[in-house]
Amino acid sequence: MTTTVERPTESQRRFKVIGTRPIRHDGLGKVTGADRYGADVQLPGMLHAKMLRSPHAHARIKKIDTSKAEALPGVKAVVTSRDLPIIDDKPIDLAETLGNPRVLAENALASSKVLYKGHAIAAVAATSPHIAEEAAELIEVEYEVLQPVLDVREAMKKDAPLIHEKLTTHEVQRRFTRGDDTGVISNVASHLQFKQGDVADGFSRADVVVEREFTTVPVHQGYIEPQASTAQWAPDGHLTIWTSSQGSFGIRDQTAAILGIPQSMVKVVPMEIGGGFGGKIGTYLDPVAALLSKKAGLPVKIVMTRKEVFEGTGPTSGSYMRCKIGARRDGTITAAEFYLAYGAGAFPGSPVGAGAMYGLAPYKIDNVLIDAYDVVLNNPKVAAYRAPGTPQAAFAVESTLDELAEKLGIEPMEFRLTNAVREGDRQVNGIPFGSVGCVEVEEAIKNHPHYRTPLNGANRGRGVAMGFWGNGGMQSSATINVNTDGTISLITGSVDIGGTRVAVAMQAAEVLGLAAEDVVPTVGDTNAVGWTGITGGSRTAFSTGIAAITAAEQIKRTMAERAALKWETQPEDIEFEDGVFVSKMNREDRLTFKEIAASMMATGGPITASASSNPRQVGVSFAATLVDVEVDRETGKVQILRATAFQDVGMAVHPSYVEGQMQGGTVQGIGWALNEEYFFTDDGTMANSSFLDYRMPTSLDLPAIDTEIIEVPNPGHPFGVRGVGEVSIVAPMAAVANAIHDAVGIRMTSLPMSPGEVLKALDEQQRAGK
Amino acid sequence: MTTTVERPTESQRRFKVIGTRPIRHDGLGKVTGADRYGADVQLPGMLHAKMLRSPHAHARIKKIDTSKAEALPGVKAVVTSRDLPIIDDKPIDLAETLGNPRVLAENALASSKVLYKGHAIAAVAATSPHIAEEAAELIEVEYEVLQPVLDVREAMKKDAPLIHEKLTTHEVQRRFTRGDDTGVISNVASHLQFKQGDVADGFSRADVVVEREFTTVPVHQGYIEPQASTAQWAPDGHLTIWTSSQGSFGIRDQTAAILGIPQSMVKVVPMEIGGGFGGKIGTYLDPVAALLSKKAGLPVKIVMTRKEVFEGTGPTSGSYMRCKIGARRDGTITAAEFYLAYGAGAFPGSPVGAGAMYGLAPYKIDNVLIDAYDVVLNNPKVAAYRAPGTPQAAFAVESTLDELAEKLGIEPMEFRLTNAVREGDRQVNGIPFGSVGCVEVEEAIKNHPHYRTPLNGANRGRGVAMGFWGNGGMQSSATINVNTDGTISLITGSVDIGGTRVAVAMQAAEVLGLAAEDVVPTVGDTNAVGWTGITGGSRTAFSTGIAAITAAEQIKRTMAERAALKWETQPEDIEFEDGVFVSKMNREDRLTFKEIAASMMATGGPITASASSNPRQVGVSFAATLVDVEVDRETGKVQILRATAFQDVGMAVHPSYVEGQMQGGTVQGIGWALNEEYFFTDDGTMANSSFLDYRMPTSLDLPAIDTEIIEVPNPGHPFGVRGVGEVSIVAPMAAVANAIHDAVGIRMTSLPMSPGEVLKALDEQQRAGK
Repeated sequence: MTTTVERPTESQRRFKVIGTRPIRHDGLGKVTGADRYGADVQLPGMLHAKMLRSPHAHARIKKIDTSKAEALPGVKAVVTSRDLPIIDDKPIDLAETLGNPRVLAENALASSKVLYKGHAIAAVAATSPHIAEEAAELIEVEYEVLQPVLDVREAMKKDAPLIHEKLTTHEVQRRFTRGDDTGVISNVASHLQFKQGDVADGFSRADVVVEREFTTVPVHQGYIEPQASTAQWAPDGHLTIWTSSQGSFGIRDQTAAILGIPQSMVKVVPMEIGGGFGGKIGTYLDPVAALLSKKAGLPVKIVMTRKEVFEGTGPTSGSYMRCKIGARRDGTITAAEFYLAYGAGAFPGSPVGAGAMYGLAPYKIDNVLIDAYDVVLNNPKVAAYRAPGTPQAAFAVESTLDELAEKLGIEPMEFRLTNAVREGDRQVNGIPFGSVGCVEVEEAIKNHPHYRTPLNGANRGRGVAMGFWGNGGMQSSATINVNTDGTISLITGSVDIGGTRVAVAMQAAEVLGLAAEDVVPTVGDTNAVGWTGITGGSRTAFSTGIAAITAAEQIKRTMAERAALKWETQPEDIEFEDGVFVSKMNREDRLTFKEIAASMMATGGPITASASSNPRQVGVSFAATLVDVEVDRETGKVQILRATAFQDVGMAVHPSYVEGQMQGGTVQGIGWALNEEYFFTDDGTMANSSFLDYRMPTSLDLPAIDTEIIEVPNPGHPFGVRGVGEVSIVAPMAAVANAIHDAVGIRMTSLPMSPGEVLKALDEQQRAGK
Repeated sequence: MTTTVERPTESQRRFKVIGTRPIRHDGLGKVTGADRYGADVQLPGMLHAKMLRSPHAHARIKKIDTSKAEALPGVKAVVTSRDLPIIDDKPIDLAETLGNPRVLAENALASSKVLYKGHAIAAVAATSPHIAEEAAELIEVEYEVLQPVLDVREAMKKDAPLIHEKLTTHEVQRRFTRGDDTGVISNVASHLQFKQGDVADGFSRADVVVEREFTTVPVHQGYIEPQASTAQWAPDGHLTIWTSSQGSFGIRDQTAAILGIPQSMVKVVPMEIGGGFGGKIGTYLDPVAALLSKKAGLPVKIVMTRKEVFEGTGPTSGSYMRCKIGARRDGTITAAEFYLAYGAGAFPGSPVGAGAMYGLAPYKIDNVLIDAYDVVLNNPKVAAYRAPGTPQAAFAVESTLDELAEKLGIEPMEFRLTNAVREGDRQVNGIPFGSVGCVEVEEAIKNHPHYRTPLNGANRGRGVAMGFWGNGGMQSSATINVNTDGTISLITGSVDIGGTRVAVAMQAAEVLGLAAEDVVPTVGDTNAVGWTGITGGSRTAFSTGIAAITAAEQIKRTMAERAALKWETQPEDIEFEDGVFVSKMNREDRLTFKEIAASMMATGGPITASASSNPRQVGVSFAATLVDVEVDRETGKVQILRATAFQDVGMAVHPSYVEGQMQGGTVQGIGWALNEEYFFTDDGTMANSSFLDYRMPTSLDLPAIDTEIIEVPNPGHPFGVRGVGEVSIVAPMAAVANAIHDAVGIRMTSLPMSPGEVLKALDEQQRAGK
């Protein structure tokens, strides 16, 4: 029931390498533990550092005394925000949210205020981690404790304590009108609004309208590997950082900006990464390790504990949402109103914009009003988490839609198909969709055995939900060097997450008629490869793939020139078929890739090419989750019986890793649906900052996740590839909620749908006599 | 008297960056000791290995018993030649000398015979170097000791013991006739002959003929850092080697060939190198460390002792030479005959070919006969040593010429200028010289204050000699990536010896209107950059420079395209002047390199380029040494009073490092002239295998060496650069010999001209009543 069916995909029919399942190049290192991660760095004379973190969720720092820590034998350096030149007395400009170096600096080392429990204040480097820890405790901080602001709706109230005294609401992407909140000092960092058509008129034409409120709480990415960074700042100003991150260039550029030095003075060496899911894009430790190294004159390593990861790094936003959708009896949606308020944590920058844009994306609706608010709270500053902001929104939209379908008496997939977006339909920002697989995904669900097989048994139910994600493009670089043994080296700047080394290598191999094993992929440091964006945003196989394809095309051109030289013809007169260069003038003239490689020293020297990508047509993704549950009416526990993930992947480069992404996203979504939550006490302390208490699903909690790959080629990529990493996390929460309703008749509107919450809802249902 | 005069060079007048003296990028790491060399590699679980080496110079191996060694606690692996698949019972094909993997394998681990004292036989990897050493001594080898062959002339005798039972004399580059030695089984591996004109007729037209015999002994490169290699062979077949060598790709390709695996399964990571001078081109330890790692399943490091370096790695050839030159009264040379027999050590491959081609190169002689023999001996296999084979030949030729000038009564520089080669004159191989600086170097000597200042005092003398070296071309690769801060990363595969990082970076900077400091150079591993030949043969600043220039030109073109896009014009209509792109259509349209770099993400993405070099016109080098000596008639000690090195460098990229090469070569040449020698006992044991007993010159032995840079641009390089690393070692021996003659009237014809030998010659002079 839960095995993944292997059958020829569209990509396998079209291509030689794309669509196959070679062993990943880094497989052995990964499974044997030979690969080196952030914490594995060892350097001669290396010091170990520990952070001092705030015990308060909201407090003014009146004084920091580091003298006792500095006096402890073995301590080599102590730093606070005073050591960061970027931090001065001027207020932070909080209009700029993404990668604002001042915000990153304040988050790395608090200056005038601590804004959440766990906010870093100081760091100590010593000859052992134990001395560093002891010294950190000797740092004396005088606080003026302030009232914490922990709930989005409370934070938005006029009389709420202000987290940033000068934060004014910033207006973004609002059409036609100017909101009366613009410029007001509050905890609302920004107000985003999308408008289409006439919402009042739309609702007036609806036969049924459903409106519901939804809440979600912060959840963490839960990567296995805690943040770790080692820095060595040489006396000539060159700073080297060994770190596990989702993007070496991002860490380099952020660190350089925070430290006020040129990018080229910083070299970031990527270590293997033990999971990121968006949480390892921003820098936390790197500038601190760098400052300590500069002071101590020695390399310094900092490794977070799990508690520090939970308390000091970004989860994703908790949220409050209201969703109102109206439709006619025939199933046509006439209007939608969607209100979203997302907690950003200590500094502006929640992913509410994505939630606002993407929650309703699978549906063609003429009359729409979306209001989205980014709200600061005394929580850790949120970070990206797989399809940031969108699972929350989809939970609201897809639950509301399910109820609407129920009330209309229309089969849920029929209802969705009636309103499904197609190529040319406009997104809420007015930009029309290109070629998309929304209908194809919905048809695939309808036709899937899982959907067609009746589900029997008491307290069992089936739910489905759609998900959408915009995918990232951004720039990548790739360099290819040909070896005389007929293989190629491929250097990219993309940290390997989920098999991107092999996925990018396969694309180069496809161009050059090679096997995946003929490519030796390397993830270069920031001095060894051209600028490359993060591994994130589902962009790597797509955009770094394009860079590799472009470099491979250059290699092919150079090889044709070499063959042309030999055959005394023109490169244009040479074809490349199945790994063989053939002269159109004389088809007897044939040279394989390997033959030209073997003779390259004699025909003009080493063959090498570098290229970059800058894709404009990125290609979005639709996905869905279909899930069967059984609800234990006595305990409130929801058991997942069967789950199938559907996804339009464009072309599946390496189906195993595409399936892995789909399964992984689904599992994370189910964890978020049923169990995961930051549990804050009233003073803003996270009460469950360990993997024992923060309940992530284990293999025992879940069935194997079935996957259904749908291949609607992306015209923006030479082989039709779409990003596949994120969208699978979007639908599960709503799918599970809809399945619970199907099983026991309750509508869950808050995450997580933990046993206690389910029991409470069942109690209410009983009391209401339903 | 001995300071280097700094004044604007030709290169400084022509260029902005070329010809200046920026601080090298790796300067801090070098002077503080932060850089990591071969022996600095530390890996988790790493084992340490020691070699067992032959106590005999010539013996058959009858049996090797490793069982006791394997049984020693702490021992994890033992290997012998049986573990090398390339070694079988078939005889070695010794016709191929350069990089013959079977020879390299036999030299790394002897199979049926040991061919020199110190020849490696087995290796042990253990948890500590001490256990490994103890275990190596437990290996029992049964030998049949054979008579060693230690002298070139003895080895060439018909009844000499054969070192390789099936070695036949191989005929190379002989014109018109076939030698009667071809195909004969002997210790002569090859016989090379060059013929031009009619030698008998030439000598018949000479007024004076001088013929002399010369001998030299093996001398070692004497690099500070002993050979060291660390290997990690992963179970999936990927082998990583961290080693200090002159060329990572060479080590990769040799190791792959010896181990019988594809090149792309081997990654060689270059460590910094503590000197090579030709001695770190061939592999010794890498395949052995690899085999041990494979057996043990752990990384293995081997570091040689100084004794092992002397006994187990290649010095350069000792030689026996006869040189006969005739000239007319007017100073015109009419004919020359030159016989050279070089010891190759245990396997064929002495550099006698270079000696044969280059010894007479500074002179236009119509009638020439050169016979050159490559002779195997029971010595360590020779390796390249700075201008391999040429210092020996120049010692013979330039000493003979000095005597000839004396007998003709012609001033030595006038005599040389009369016969100096110019562009278009043919080399002994028939190929005409391109633009060369032979005359310019000789004129520079004549006009130099050192040459024009009278030398007063008893037993003092002045000598001069010319030197020639052909320089290497070969292929290199380079990748350039632009940073948004307006700097560039430059990745090459050239191990940095003597400042090649900065010299190559300066060439890229010159193209792009940047400062040297705007370039961040990286030496990539073999998976990180295109194939690149060794740092050796004076090729790196020249050929890797061309690769960097070509990549920089690509970057410039891409930047012009970006500017053209912005200005809606064509890239052809854009000029690049002083770091600024200017539209020819509207000269107000100006963008600096840094401006285009800063905006590159918005104009098309990261800017990157890879290129390779494959130069055909390499550009040869002439040099000379002018030296003043004082001979102590009581002790025989020769004191260098003053030395000036003259050299045509094409264009001096970084004059300080050019001067450094000239000074270094001169110092090594003086050491070779006066002190350095392998002192073998009758059984073939090197009696002085330590730096205490192998007498290299120290700073106390020498004055500062003056340098005179001559700049005759090389038309084969965009900026006129010639290789500068080697030629300065060619002339010193003859210059010192000629100076000794000028001082005390004796003609030294054997190297080294150590106190004992000088005393002996003075005794003979006295006995002869001269």
